[in-house]
This record gives sequence, structure tokens and C-alpha cells, in this order.
Amino acid sequence: MIIVLKENAAKQQIDDLSNQLSDYGVKVHSIEGTETTVLGLVGDTSAIDVETIRLNDIVDKVMKVSEPYKRANRKFHPNNTVIDISDDISIGGNKIAIMAGPCSVESQEQINAVAKAVKSSGATILRGGAFKPRSSPYAFQGLKSEGLLYMKQAKQLTGLPIVSEITNPYYIDLFNEYVDIIQVGARNMQNFELLKELGKVKKPILLKRGFSNTIEEFLMSAEYIISSGNERVILCERGIRTFETYTRNTLDLSAVPVLKKMSHLPVVVDPSHASGIYWLVEPMSLAAVAAGADGLIIEVHNNPKCALCDGAQSLTPENFDDLMKKVKLVAKAVSREV
Amino acid sequence: MIIVLKENAAKQQIDDLSNQLSDYGVKVHSIEGTETTVLGLVGDTSAIDVETIRLNDIVDKVMKVSEPYKRANRKFHPNNTVIDISDDISIGGNKIAIMAGPCSVESQEQINAVAKAVKSSGATILRGGAFKPRSSPYAFQGLKSEGLLYMKQAKQLTGLPIVSEITNPYYIDLFNEYVDIIQVGARNMQNFELLKELGKVKKPILLKRGFSNTIEEFLMSAEYIISSGNERVILCERGIRTFETYTRNTLDLSAVPVLKKMSHLPVVVDPSHASGIYWLVEPMSLAAVAAGADGLIIEVHNNPKCALCDGAQSLTPENFDDLMKKVKLVAKAVSREV
Amino acid sequence: MIIVLKENAAKQQIDDLSNQLSDYGVKVHSIEGTETTVLGLVGDTSAIDVETIRLNDIVDKVMKVSEPYKRANRKFHPNNTVIDISDDISIGGNKIAIMAGPCSVESQEQINAVAKAVKSSGATILRGGAFKPRSSPYAFQGLKSEGLLYMKQAKQLTGLPIVSEITNPYYIDLFNEYVDIIQVGARNMQNFELLKELGKVKKPILLKRGFSNTIEEFLMSAEYIISSGNERVILCERGIRTFETYTRNTLDLSAVPVLKKMSHLPVVVDPSHASGIYWLVEPMSLAAVAAGADGLIIEVHNNPKCALCDGAQSLTPENFDDLMKKVKLVAKAVSREV
Amino acid sequence: MIIVLKENAAKQQIDDLSNQLSDYGVKVHSIEGTETTVLGLVGDTSAIDVETIRLNDIVDKVMKVSEPYKRANRKFHPNNTVIDISDDISIGGNKIAIMAGPCSVESQEQINAVAKAVKSSGATILRGGAFKPRSSPYAFQGLKSEGLLYMKQAKQLTGLPIVSEITNPYYIDLFNEYVDIIQVGARNMQNFELLKELGKVKKPILLKRGFSNTIEEFLMSAEYIISSGNERVILCERGIRTFETYTRNTLDLSAVPVLKKMSHLPVVVDPSHASGIYWLVEPMSLAAVAAGADGLIIEVHNNPKCALCDGAQSLTPENFDDLMKKVKLVAKAVSREV
Repeated sequence: MIIVLKENAAKQQIDDLSNQLSDYGVKVHSIEGTETTVLGLVGDTSAIDVETIRLNDIVDKVMKVSEPYKRANRKFHPNNTVIDISDDISIGGNKIAIMAGPCSVESQEQINAVAKAVKSSGATILRGGAFKPRSSPYAFQGLKSEGLLYMKQAKQLTGLPIVSEITNPYYIDLFNEYVDIIQVGARNMQNFELLKELGKVKKPILLKRGFSNTIEEFLMSAEYIISSGNERVILCERGIRTFETYTRNTLDLSAVPVLKKMSHLPVVVDPSHASGIYWLVEPMSLAAVAAGADGLIIEVHNNPKCALCDGAQSLTPENFDDLMKKVKLVAKAVSREV
Repeated sequence: MIIVLKENAAKQQIDDLSNQLSDYGVKVHSIEGTETTVLGLVGDTSAIDVETIRLNDIVDKVMKVSEPYKRANRKFHPNNTVIDISDDISIGGNKIAIMAGPCSVESQEQINAVAKAVKSSGATILRGGAFKPRSSPYAFQGLKSEGLLYMKQAKQLTGLPIVSEITNPYYIDLFNEYVDIIQVGARNMQNFELLKELGKVKKPILLKRGFSNTIEEFLMSAEYIISSGNERVILCERGIRTFETYTRNTLDLSAVPVLKKMSHLPVVVDPSHASGIYWLVEPMSLAAVAAGADGLIIEVHNNPKCALCDGAQSLTPENFDDLMKKVKLVAKAVSREV
Repeated sequence: MIIVLKENAAKQQIDDLSNQLSDYGVKVHSIEGTETTVLGLVGDTSAIDVETIRLNDIVDKVMKVSEPYKRANRKFHPNNTVIDISDDISIGGNKIAIMAGPCSVESQEQINAVAKAVKSSGATILRGGAFKPRSSPYAFQGLKSEGLLYMKQAKQLTGLPIVSEITNPYYIDLFNEYVDIIQVGARNMQNFELLKELGKVKKPILLKRGFSNTIEEFLMSAEYIISSGNERVILCERGIRTFETYTRNTLDLSAVPVLKKMSHLPVVVDPSHASGIYWLVEPMSLAAVAAGADGLIIEVHNNPKCALCDGAQSLTPENFDDLMKKVKLVAKAVSREV
Repeated sequence: MIIVLKENAAKQQIDDLSNQLSDYGVKVHSIEGTETTVLGLVGDTSAIDVETIRLNDIVDKVMKVSEPYKRANRKFHPNNTVIDISDDISIGGNKIAIMAGPCSVESQEQINAVAKAVKSSGATILRGGAFKPRSSPYAFQGLKSEGLLYMKQAKQLTGLPIVSEITNPYYIDLFNEYVDIIQVGARNMQNFELLKELGKVKKPILLKRGFSNTIEEFLMSAEYIISSGNERVILCERGIRTFETYTRNTLDLSAVPVLKKMSHLPVVVDPSHASGIYWLVEPMSLAAVAAGADGLIIEVHNNPKCALCDGAQSLTPENFDDLMKKVKLVAKAVSREV
């Protein structure tokens, strides 16, 4: 930690502050400049509150030198984390994971049909929403536990492991029983009560970036889960909120290589929710793979025009099949497999 | 609802779409232009999903004519909602409500001291955090139920009703017993599971705007609470996330008159969290009152330099006393009382 | 300047970097921590390019300690700058300057009528657009030099000094002859060629903040003008671009006290362009005065419904007269005059 | 154009408004709903100012049906525009154009060395800055006309056509003489005076998206150039300003397929300026090609550690050579050539 003092700081005041800081067990080095004095703190500064220091009358600025996340930080974990989902499926290795399925589970027939279709095109994990967070109280809120049951049956039919979104710590037992990967949606990325509970679970967690959260905040939310005991966190970039309104959100693909550099966790991309427009799913999926993504999560619906939610961003099984062919070509071009 | 068709739409396709729409019980008016045809829908369109319509091959654009919130909408409730907090305190009338207190409750002594101080300067409601959502898992997370207990004793001492933040539906009974106003923090503004539960509660809800949510989304979250049965919602503007990093967030004061125009609900402003800087609290408090706010929620700490959280934005009791004198003058200038 | 080194930096590499830095005439202090080494540079670091240093193999981070603006910085100029516009009008003192007039000058009759009206309500400076930057090439682009001529005649009629926007260095002689304050619009805040030319002019410059520029960039643009020779710069906050679309831009009123703290230059606020909605002009004008603005610049049109541009945000002379009465009350409440 | 009226609009008022609108030569269709009346305007509405209509007492909302840009719109120009730069180089066809070179031209030796290097790796156009817009008046401002002269000699040496940024209409003759493509920088995207002058020029224009401009505003700026007479506009996505600060800007790659759909103009991507970090250039270049970009513009410097500007984002010739090999593989995967 670096503390820049104000120009008029008196010798006595500087000594007092240095002594106060030493009480935290750190060594304080003072650099006297022509205009200002700078204090450099050496040792474990994690117990020192930046804001409290900033309030000292002689302090001008406080700058942190190290990242606030430890367990999610590649510095302390240089190798990629590879997360096993089933005997033959993992995320974070050379093979790109493809999760596909409908925004909402609507019926047993629908989820079965979509599951079979996406499997035959090469998807390895089935996605589907049972508990739906919707911005309007008047919109379809999902089939809830019934939806999870339908997904489990689709899994038995196809062998595809399943991922679905949780919205309340209350449902953890249910999800533990039914799903293979528990998803935390963008709106819950800073629902810290939920994150702490998911840290006690044995299942991998697919953590979506909040649509207005920085990369550092995203990794701090992963840190919440890991520091509570669950190291199997999959990061998911799904678009951020900007001034541009043509797309629903702005897919921040540079977050992929940045997250891969800062953290050892796998990074997947959701091009469907980012754009909200089905014809953008293909180019953005290809771009995500070219940028280094470890996986894609894509909405596919057997009849998008009648989907109960987010039909506008869903691919038909035919479109998805086309997309998969192109994804394989781009994956190969960047030395990855699908 | 207005549906703009693509130029090449064939007569038969237009008729098919019109018939399909009529099935929802609305009347469809067609306007044939030189370049394009527009369909105007008359009747209750709430059951028609915009995104599904948008997927039709001949549809170019769909525009909604009416706001998606009903219960929070001033159109259907022209008079201001005034919410009674206690026998002599209400929010939304001519008198501006002043809520003040520490970011975190730290001890019985601390909350008592702050409560007495802010009361003597003119505050009418005591704020204090017991369950603290923090972006780092390593930061102080609050005294939890013990903090609520201390606040209740401070209430008995001073008579000030209390407001505190809830972070999990699990704690609702606890909050029902201890606090007078239940606060929903910015990060939980779209925690719809929590909002639905709070709709079943008898206490007023102070709903903070998410730092990246639009005014419409804010009112939709209020709608969640109201439509679940609780009409006593107080809206709180607390800054939005922008590219500017000098302040923690950008206080959006134009949201105050906009919310007052769109909705009948009271609107209060939190200048402390918006800026994150104590010397901005005074000018932004005065500006909020001038812009028409129905209340202020301000952080006051007896010793900001030692606060366990957010000291940098807390006023001392002396600063708060100065501020209150100025607030009274500006309130009077805009024909309000404090 | 503070340079944080990577953990694996070798002694020899650190010495080499230190020697390289010493060549710039600064003293280098080294702090060896347990995990990392930090170099503190003392002396004039303005010649050292941060980005070049950052590329050194052993460098992790580089942090600047001092602000990049000097001439606009209050640190080196503690007193407020007060800018005289005419014998009896100045900006930056206790009296709040009120600039009012139409978005565009449309005719001699129009500008005369508006000038007389706003003067009688208490405006002290006449604003009006002659060269209009419009986002569509098909929109009305202003009366150009004819508009300036009409404004000059309105000045002769009323005695009000005039402010108008320049869009091209080519017109500087024309503006020198006709206007009292030369305005730089938000879209030209980083038109550095224009700023440098305006540094050679004797007239005060009203510099609007770009709608997507930080406070630091804003002050750097003021620095361009001042360092080119013209110290009379008036800063103008006019709203920033955010995700919120209800208002055209989001008026960043906290920028007012921040700019006043960082810089000695006067700060005025444009509530008309920020919101784009006439009924927001009154509350935001009052809020701006309460937040400490040194002036307001407000659009007034004798017939907003027929204005050739931006009618939606213009006040009628009657609305403006009402507003002025309220502005006076709020100004008095914060110990200012109008 | 669609006009939604307020609920309480009287028959006489609606007739008056309809008549007023008919005076613009459009047909007015009225749809009477249960709550509100909607007017649909058929014909050429380009002369009707939306804001003026919005001020009418009975008008609630006005919505535009068609895009405001015509000449840049794919609707009226279905085929891709392919722009010839030289006998054998064009932009907008199947071959992806690679522009590479230093941020700033620093000397004849430097630009010659870089030009030879990038040519041998496969670049087909040489980029280099002579007039540099810098946010600090104290930063290196470029070699100006001397820089253009050096670039022209590098062109004679290598045969590479050159692209360089203009900052002032004053220099148009100079650029006409020296460069093959005139670049408009992000900060000048809405410098309409400059755009209008460039509409009179015979050279292709590389128009960069302003860092805070929407896709619609971007196309309106292209419209300025085209409607002034120059149809050869190349669009360039280079990152937008968001709340995320890890990267300098957020590269908006979804803008590539969106611009290709809305407009017939070629779209290139600048991954160097978007991120400001050299190790992000490779993944984002590959992603841009996968997303459908027609070209890349990349900073390459023979000695990034000593670059006079933006060294942090420059590739070495070796890195660039590596990148080109990968770009070719991804291009092939999406059926393009380099």
C-alpha cells in the first residue's frame, strides 16, 4: 500500500501516522519528495482499511498495490483450473464446452426435443431455465421445480449434464438433487448471501458477470464462493450495460483474455443474452471462440416464435447446427477442439 | 402497441399476422404507407409478448405505447402517496424526512451516541446497517441480529423510528420485529425473490435504485412489491455507475423530478453512498432538496476515522448539525419544511 | 510517480531501471517489500512517459501521484478566478451569472424579443446559437454569420453581452468581432486544434464538458486553452452520457463541487441540454445553484413549439420569469446573489 | 412517424393537430384506442421535427419508424460497397485489409523500418500518425507535415498505400497530396465542419467511431460525408467508453455485424486503441475477424519501449508476424482471405 501525503504535512504528524500504521504489523518506508512525502507499507496490509487511512488530515491519496482477490488470482495458482462435470466432460481444458438449450423449460416434450437436437449437433451440456428472474412481475416466471424435474428426465434421455439458474438460497437442496452445474445469474452476482451458501455446495457454479460489474468485482464474487469452500467456479461473460441501445447489452469480449490472465478459472461466453438478437449469436459465438473462450452457452428453442421468454435471441435447432459447424472451424484455427 | 412491418410484407402475411393478433382480444388497425405498413393494436396488450411478435418474418419493429408499470404509475394514482412511519412522522408530504446514522452499527454505545446527536440536529429517523453486503468476503459483514437489537434500544432511548437493510428473505421475521422501515439495497433491487416476499410484509419498504438500473426498471421493482400486496414503497436515488471515477457513483438528481412525475411514490436521496466522499454530502444534499426530494438519508458517525466501513463518506455529528441548518434554509426556499 | 515492480525482478534489472530513471533527473527511492519492490520517484517527472515505463519487463504498475493539469489546478492558484465580462458583469464571484436565450437565432425579431424578455426577468448575458453542430446533415445548421449579426444588434438594444458557440478555428476573427464570450460545445471539447487557437484569443471561453469526458479530461482541455495564453476559461457542466435514456444526458451535479475543489475556474451549469426536457429545467436549475454553481445557461424561446431546434427543452419567457424568482430564493438560501 | 396522444385529448385538438401535420404533405391516419389515440403519418416525414411535435399539449410520445440515415443505409443500397485504394488493394470485398504501422511517425528511419517489416508479414496498408490529438497539451503532438513526408517516402520504398489522421479542415490540401486514405479520429467523429469538408475530397475516408457514440450517430456522421459528395467511407470500430477501467475502452465487436446489417459500408476494427494493452491485440484481432470485420488497423513499432506515444499498445514486428499467421487461419475458417 502506498500513501501519498499532503504537501503541508508536519514532521510530527507524519511520525504519528507512521507509528499508527506500524501497529498493524507493517513496515513503513518514508520517501521525502520536493513537493510531497510518500509512505510505502511493506507486509500484510489486508487488515488496513483504505478509507479510514484516507480520512487522516495529512493524507492526500491511498493506492493499493495488490489485487484484493487471492483464491481466484492466477498469481497464486498459475495453472488453469479444469472442472470435471461428468466422466467425460470438463470445462477449462483444450476442449470448448458447448451448453445449449431453451431460455425456459416449458414442457417435458419441449425440453426433450431441444435436448436431442442440440446433442446431435454437438452440444455437451443442456441449459434451461426453471426459476426465471424477470424484470416485470407480470411476465412468465418459470415452471420452477417442475422445470427441474423435466430437465432431469431430458438428462436421462440424452446423457447431457444440466445447468440451471438458482435465485434464492432456499432452493439449494433442490438444485443439489437435480442439476449438475448451478448457475448464478447476472442480477445475483452480488447477492453475497447466495454466494456464501453456494460456497458450501459440492456442485460446480457457473457465475455470470453482473451487467454493470467490473472485472475486479466479478473476481471478488468468485472469491466469495471459493473462500466459502467451493473452488469449482466457472466465469461467464454475458454483456455489460453501456449507452449503446441497439444491442440489449454490449458483449465485452476483451474480458475473456483479461479474466484468463488475472485468474486461473475457466471463462465461458453467453452471446444470446448479451445481444438479445438471434442473428448476432453466430458472429459473436465465433468471435468468443477466437478470443479464447473455454465454452459457449447458447439459447436454442424448437419454436422461437412461440417461446415463453426471450424468443428473439433463440436459435432454431437448424441454426444451431449450422453454427456448430462454423464453431468447429474457428476452434480448430485457434488450436482448440469442440 | 405499434407494429412496423417490413417493406416487402405480402398482403396474405399481413392478414395472417392481424388475425393472430386479434386472437389476443385486441383490435388491429392497419395503416398502409408508401414504404411500409404499420399495425396499431387497440385494447389490452399486456398478454402479448413483444419479443415473440418481433420474430415474425414480416415485422421490422415493435413499439410499446404504455408504461409497463401500473400500480406504481401516477397515471392511475394522481395524488402523492404519503407513508406514515409513526404517529408524527411520514414521508411524501410537505415535510422532508431526514434519516441519519452510521453505515454500520458497531456497538450499543456508538449507535446510542449517534442517535442522540442526529436527533438533536433534527433527524427524524435513525439509519444503521446490521447486515452489510460487502464486495469483498474479507471485509466486515456487520453485527447482524445483534446490530438490530442495538438499534431497537437506540430507538427506545430517542424515539427515532429505525431503517435498516435486509439482504435475504430468510431474515424477514427478524426485521418485522425490530425495524420500522425495511431497506432493500442497490445490489438487491432486482432480487425479485426478495421483493415478492417483501410484498407480503406490513412495513414500509425503502427501495434503493440499482446502480445500473434505469428509471423504468426501478419502477418495475417497486411494482413487484406493490403487486405482491405492499403499497408502502419509498424510492431512493443513490447514484448510478458511469465512466466517471472521481466519485464512486454519479448521483442522478434528475431522477427525482422524473420519478415524481411518473410515479406517486415518495422519493428520497442518499448523497453519502452516491459520492463516497464526505465533503460532497453537503452540496449534494442541498441540491437534492432543491430538486424536490421528499427526504435524505445521510451517514453520520461519531468517529469517521475509525468507522468499520465507509468512514470516508460519513459526516461527524458537528458536520451534520451544520448541514441541517443549511438544509432548512434551502427547504424553505422551495416551500418545504424539515 | 510510484512504480510497482513484479515479484521476480532481479537485483540487476532493478538497478538498470533505477539508473535509466535517474537519467531523467529524478531521485529514485527503492522500498523492498516481502512480495514486491516499489520505486518512488522524487523530482519533476513530467518528462517521463508512464506507458513507456509500464513496458519494462520488471514493471507491474505505474501510478501517478500528481494531477496532470497545472495551470487549471487550484493547488497552484488557491483563490477563485473571477472573470469580468463587462464593466458590471463578472462570473466566478458571489453573484450567480444567468445566461439565457434561444438554442438558435432565427431572426432579428426573435432574438430581440427573447433578449428583452430575459433581461426583464433578470438574465445578465444573452445566449444564442448561430453555427449549430447537428448530428443529422439534414437538420437546420444555423443562420451562421447572419445570426451573430442579429445577436450583436440585440446586444445594442438591451446591453446584454452575448455568448455563442464556435465550431471551427476558421471563424475566430468573426467571433472576436461579434461576441463577448466564445463557447466551445461538448462535441468540440477535445478538438485540440480549436482549443489551441482559442488560447490566443482575448475573449473569455465558455468550455462545455464533453458528454463522455471525465473531470480530469475536462480540466486538461481547459489546460490547453490556458497554456496557449488565455486564462479566462469558464467551465460548463451539461450532462454526461449514461445508460439512462429517459433524459437526453445525465446531469452530473457532483461535478460542480468537485470542479470547484480541483480548480480555481468558475463553473456554470446548462440544465436545458442536459435533460432535453423543459419541465426538468426548473428543478435542475435550483439544484445546480444549491450545489454551488457560479452560473446557469438556459434556453428560452418566445415560441418553443415552433423553434427550429431543441424546442422541447426551451422555456417560454413566462416559465423563465417564474424560474428566476425561485432561483433567487435558493441563491439567497446558499448565501449567493443573482 | 407514430404520434401517441394523451388520454384527455379533445376531438377538436386532434383535428387541429392532424391538419397541421397534413400541411407537411403527409397523410395522417388516426387510430382510436380505449385509452388513447394514435396518429400514423404516411409519406416523407423528414421535414417534421420530432421535438416540435412533442411539445404539442395533446402529444404524449413521438416515435420514428425509419432510420435517419439514407445514403449510408443498406435498405437503399443492398450490395456491399467495395472501396478501391490502389490498383490491387480494396476494402469491403472478400479479402481482409490489414493496416499496420506506428502510432506516431518519429523519423524516416523508423517509418521505413516498420513499413518494410509489416509489409513482409502481409500488411497491405501503412498507418502512421503525423498530427496527433493528445489529451494533454504537454504530450508529444506529432511531427506534423514532416511526418506525412516521411510516410510518403516509406510508401515509395514499399509500395504500401498510407492512411493518416487529419485534425483540422485547414490541412485538407496537404492530406490530399500525401495520403491515400484520410482518417478521422474518434474525437472528431462529430466535428461536422471537418466531415462536410471531407465530403468534397476524392480520397477514401476512414471514419472512427467516437468513443461515446451510438451506432446510429456513427452512421449519421458517415451520412454527413456521403451527403456532401464523398461516398467512399470506411467505418472503424475502436472501442467505447464504459464503466470498466481495466481496458482503456471496451471493444464493441457486436457493432461489426450490426453495422454490416444496417449499412453497405466496409467495417474495420482497431484492437490496439480499444484496449490500450499490447497482449490484448492478438485475441481481439482474431475475434474481430471471426465477427466479420473487413479489415484490421494495428499499431506496430520497432521499439515499443521507446515509442513517443502509445507504446503500451504497440506490437513488435515479431509479434505482428505471429499475429498475421493466426489471422490467416481464422480468416480461412470464416471463408475470408488476408
